[in-house]
Amino acid sequence: MQRVKTAVVGASGYTGSELLRLLLQHPQIELCAVTSRQEAGRSIESLFPRYRGLPGAELCFIEPDADAIAATGAVVALLALPHGVAAEIATALLARNIKVIDLSADFRIHDPAVYQEFYQHPHPAPELLKQAVYGLAEVHSSAIAQASLVASPGCYPTSILLPLIPLLREKLIDPTTIIANSLSGVSGAGKKADTAYLFCECNESLRAYGIPKHRHLAEIEQELSLAAGTTVVMTFIPHLVPVNTGIHSTITAHLATGVDAATIGNALQQAYQHQPFVRLLVAGVCADTKNVTRTNYIDIGWHIDARTNRLIITSAEDNVIKGAGGQALQSLNLMFGLDPKAGLQSV
Amino acid sequence: MQRVKTAVVGASGYTGSELLRLLLQHPQIELCAVTSRQEAGRSIESLFPRYRGLPGAELCFIEPDADAIAATGAVVALLALPHGVAAEIATALLARNIKVIDLSADFRIHDPAVYQEFYQHPHPAPELLKQAVYGLAEVHSSAIAQASLVASPGCYPTSILLPLIPLLREKLIDPTTIIANSLSGVSGAGKKADTAYLFCECNESLRAYGIPKHRHLAEIEQELSLAAGTTVVMTFIPHLVPVNTGIHSTITAHLATGVDAATIGNALQQAYQHQPFVRLLVAGVCADTKNVTRTNYIDIGWHIDARTNRLIITSAEDNVIKGAGGQALQSLNLMFGLDPKAGLQSV
Amino acid sequence: MQRVKTAVVGASGYTGSELLRLLLQHPQIELCAVTSRQEAGRSIESLFPRYRGLPGAELCFIEPDADAIAATGAVVALLALPHGVAAEIATALLARNIKVIDLSADFRIHDPAVYQEFYQHPHPAPELLKQAVYGLAEVHSSAIAQASLVASPGCYPTSILLPLIPLLREKLIDPTTIIANSLSGVSGAGKKADTAYLFCECNESLRAYGIPKHRHLAEIEQELSLAAGTTVVMTFIPHLVPVNTGIHSTITAHLATGVDAATIGNALQQAYQHQPFVRLLVAGVCADTKNVTRTNYIDIGWHIDARTNRLIITSAEDNVIKGAGGQALQSLNLMFGLDPKAGLQSV
Amino acid sequence: MQRVKTAVVGASGYTGSELLRLLLQHPQIELCAVTSRQEAGRSIESLFPRYRGLPGAELCFIEPDADAIAATGAVVALLALPHGVAAEIATALLARNIKVIDLSADFRIHDPAVYQEFYQHPHPAPELLKQAVYGLAEVHSSAIAQASLVASPGCYPTSILLPLIPLLREKLIDPTTIIANSLSGVSGAGKKADTAYLFCECNESLRAYGIPKHRHLAEIEQELSLAAGTTVVMTFIPHLVPVNTGIHSTITAHLATGVDAATIGNALQQAYQHQPFVRLLVAGVCADTKNVTRTNYIDIGWHIDARTNRLIITSAEDNVIKGAGGQALQSLNLMFGLDPKAGLQSV
Repeated sequence: MQRVKTAVVGASGYTGSELLRLLLQHPQIELCAVTSRQEAGRSIESLFPRYRGLPGAELCFIEPDADAIAATGAVVALLALPHGVAAEIATALLARNIKVIDLSADFRIHDPAVYQEFYQHPHPAPELLKQAVYGLAEVHSSAIAQASLVASPGCYPTSILLPLIPLLREKLIDPTTIIANSLSGVSGAGKKADTAYLFCECNESLRAYGIPKHRHLAEIEQELSLAAGTTVVMTFIPHLVPVNTGIHSTITAHLATGVDAATIGNALQQAYQHQPFVRLLVAGVCADTKNVTRTNYIDIGWHIDARTNRLIITSAEDNVIKGAGGQALQSLNLMFGLDPKAGLQSV
Repeated sequence: MQRVKTAVVGASGYTGSELLRLLLQHPQIELCAVTSRQEAGRSIESLFPRYRGLPGAELCFIEPDADAIAATGAVVALLALPHGVAAEIATALLARNIKVIDLSADFRIHDPAVYQEFYQHPHPAPELLKQAVYGLAEVHSSAIAQASLVASPGCYPTSILLPLIPLLREKLIDPTTIIANSLSGVSGAGKKADTAYLFCECNESLRAYGIPKHRHLAEIEQELSLAAGTTVVMTFIPHLVPVNTGIHSTITAHLATGVDAATIGNALQQAYQHQPFVRLLVAGVCADTKNVTRTNYIDIGWHIDARTNRLIITSAEDNVIKGAGGQALQSLNLMFGLDPKAGLQSV
Repeated sequence: MQRVKTAVVGASGYTGSELLRLLLQHPQIELCAVTSRQEAGRSIESLFPRYRGLPGAELCFIEPDADAIAATGAVVALLALPHGVAAEIATALLARNIKVIDLSADFRIHDPAVYQEFYQHPHPAPELLKQAVYGLAEVHSSAIAQASLVASPGCYPTSILLPLIPLLREKLIDPTTIIANSLSGVSGAGKKADTAYLFCECNESLRAYGIPKHRHLAEIEQELSLAAGTTVVMTFIPHLVPVNTGIHSTITAHLATGVDAATIGNALQQAYQHQPFVRLLVAGVCADTKNVTRTNYIDIGWHIDARTNRLIITSAEDNVIKGAGGQALQSLNLMFGLDPKAGLQSV
Repeated sequence: MQRVKTAVVGASGYTGSELLRLLLQHPQIELCAVTSRQEAGRSIESLFPRYRGLPGAELCFIEPDADAIAATGAVVALLALPHGVAAEIATALLARNIKVIDLSADFRIHDPAVYQEFYQHPHPAPELLKQAVYGLAEVHSSAIAQASLVASPGCYPTSILLPLIPLLREKLIDPTTIIANSLSGVSGAGKKADTAYLFCECNESLRAYGIPKHRHLAEIEQELSLAAGTTVVMTFIPHLVPVNTGIHSTITAHLATGVDAATIGNALQQAYQHQPFVRLLVAGVCADTKNVTRTNYIDIGWHIDARTNRLIITSAEDNVIKGAGGQALQSLNLMFGLDPKAGLQSV
């Protein structure tokens, strides 16, 4: 079988480098182009010494140019660029018949007005929004399989949407009572020179941020609303904690009348029993990021707080894999008819 | 002025050693006895090399015996013992006219039935419960000043009670909607040989635990109910995160009708403007444990989530100081008429 | 091709669990038995939730019994047991024609008197020492390929031996001047309930230990002496530092007359250019454990300190992979004629 | 007694902020001016929320101008500026009769040629070098007491010089055989926006750097040579490890003929028994940074490696206190006749 020729655009940050790691080890993919404005000319293995020895790691970064990417034979490109920037190159790549999986927020929000509200600038390519598919593989797999443009979900949203969507679809929780407290490792802030993310500023520090309207809230509410069949407005509180990778989300909501632990468990089972990357925990067990870091798994646990009639969900994922690069690869596998698990099973 | 002769009973763990640190540096206290069944005969400075050089650190641990403690002239004893064990020695010390500040949970819960529900054994000394005062210095200062037996609050409760009590008293939030997500450093688990708290089990790990009925919930609800004038039942979700010390609590609740950010700010100002160890943050600023670790401060921030009409509070404290040893010293200062800030101002 | 039926004896610690991870993902191995006295009856995936989803992770632990292991059809067993204990089961397994790769120290030291000197008890099976091969794959590959009993090297020794052996063979450094300062992550201490390795005792702590005669010194000097053709006595200073995994060794020695950076580089190139898991760094670049953790690579850098005529070597490896489980698999691959890289290439 | 009016020039980094912490709590000092080009106009407590509540923390940063500083009545200024920059303002302050304690390297090296060799630019104020005193309080106390210009030692040098100087003076070790391997927390790199010091680049990373000629080597060799009475050339290998603060140095050297552990212990005792901030460990005990962080102590341990006739020293200090701000305060106390321990005893 021929390998899928794949480009990564913007490969020098944490998400980009994780994508490279996954792609270089994917049995059915050939990494044909990597771009970075800053690192053009350097090889992958010189920028990321960890990858030296992997076949393909001698590939050199090129400038992010659509023609140059097309010339490498790429049939799909993964974009790990800042929002706003991604839309422009996506347009150019699509025009050259290269499918696009965008890991930025640019194509996640269906409504450009909501995009502008949360991202503070007009949408850079509203004409593409109709064809964009939200790349939550466990939820939108058939649309992803047909798509030319996939908007890969944010890291926080993945950890909140996967547990909640089946429950909202089945109307097991009250959609007006959802609160998510999420903890993220520092890689979530990206690899940028900013004193706020220096080791000494993060180590031995616990802090919330982005209250009350973190950008990821827009896509979370969009997808929850789709699942609930009604507009969902919720509270989302992200926190920065001193781990390299990992997101832990604790989600509370009131149970609908008559719903108990078994109902919740059944709904999650029903939704995910055939999904290779969702692991439902035994009732009463809490998720722990140390069981999922460096994997594409999301672990989901649930408890009933009978005293308050609240459901408490805990979920754990690796923010740069299941929450970013790994999830994007799930979309790629779907788009090209590969084994859904290909390149993603390592633990 | 004569120094207050003080004993520490059970001084070999994290809370006990922090008490020793604070007491050895307190200008108006003389540490006259330290006990530890395991370490009897050793000096403080040999067990805790960090304290070598502090005047008094050559004091040796003795067995935890009430007569032996009384013989040292102690007028007050701080107990850093497991719950269940503390009550017994407290009884013996009180009988010898030694005041007691108990850092365990034994005297925090007024109702012995609630104690039994949460701690799974009958209360060991129910006859003492009437005289016990809950040692939240900012709330119960005059009762503490008169008390012979103070039950020093738990670490999590302190971080949740201080921001909420003024708001419940003023009926600014809906008491049925309170949810607290708290993050604790690993010192909160104590210094015990348990593989769950090994470095490699905690580092790069984020996990909730103790859901849905952590023991601290009992005292939190008791004190919130007192403030609200009605029974408060809430959801409390503790998490273990990889820092040595620090508790961060994120608390959400629905605002009462007509309440805005200024109302919240005023109520907190009103309650705490003369309290030396409560620092109210500027509106919109989040608490960060790195600003309070190794101090007796609690920092409190608040945000309004206008989209959901929820209040979001963030609080940060050092779990072994403001949440344990430092707070106990606030009680001691009150009980002996010392400067409320004595021995607690170091940052 | 038939998979090699493999048992792991003593699989509940950090080295054992890493072995399981590697074996469960090895394309040419079938994990047929795992033992643990404490965990007998539990499945791998229940003890190690991280591995849930891997084919084979439903296998249950059994008691460590040679007959029971033989009954599973195992042709090779990896022992991740404490020294002293390993020798006994090794004897029983070899008697049943099961090859043994022992990750303890029991068969590393050729001379039982040296074993007794460093391990403080008589050697438990001196009659097996003659057939044991020191499992440093890059150095003793042909002996390993023929062996029935391999003593897999210690984590520290691996990081020190690989850079030094070629230099001693070529007489490029003065063997009387070797000093190694090594830093180890806390997983090196094993998964045992000991307060010394609690999170709060290790985090924000830097400390040397085991001076001046750490047990690993015995095997380091044995192998260095073989390479030098003369008895080497050296100084080895291990340190515990707050990372989960990783060993960093900094080694100094006086250069022999006329030796320069190029000579050193050439000797290392000569020795390792065809070795898949040794990565020689560019001259002047220092090793960093973050480039090798979770891989089977060892990175080696070198500098000349012209002012003192000393060579300075830095090496980095993952202590539980290249320093333990991964290296043991290198031996297994050699013993069964598999691709030397099989199951070890993931980064 | 009147407080010593003190200015801090360049107070926004890690060393500067630690100086502020110490000075604001010093009983005999009044902090009269703090400067920062970037933060002029802001208050200390707004830039460092940790310090809010300390008397004096409402002081505002001003521009670094000698006249402005003089106008505040400052009689001494502590400079926490980059090397090269410090010399200029030092000159201006001295001209205004303000004593200077410089925490940069500008006045540490007596020989401007050596300065230029190690710092790669001509010395900015060679005319001041004669009057500068190297501020190692335990070694040069009387010169410091008389000085107008003190060059406060580097963090690494302090940890290496204090244990070695008495041994070289007594000729107990061979000065040609000294090798120091030092580990530093990340605060040593300063608070600058540089991706190399991001949390994710340092956490779970162990790496050497600055080999073989780190800048601190110049002052180490200068002071060792003074103590030895002969030119000392040594090997110094710094490492970056994931802790916030702390330096651990492991130093090896050959023992002179006939020297044993008792001789070493006696020499160190002789030198430091009356020094309040040097703690000699019990023979055979290793230093651990967790016992000295956030204090002005340096802990020193020693072992004899009888097999190689080498002395092994371990030392531990807090790099921003004993290695920087605290040590500078020792000089200030000496210069103004204050209690040598004033403001430095907190643990």
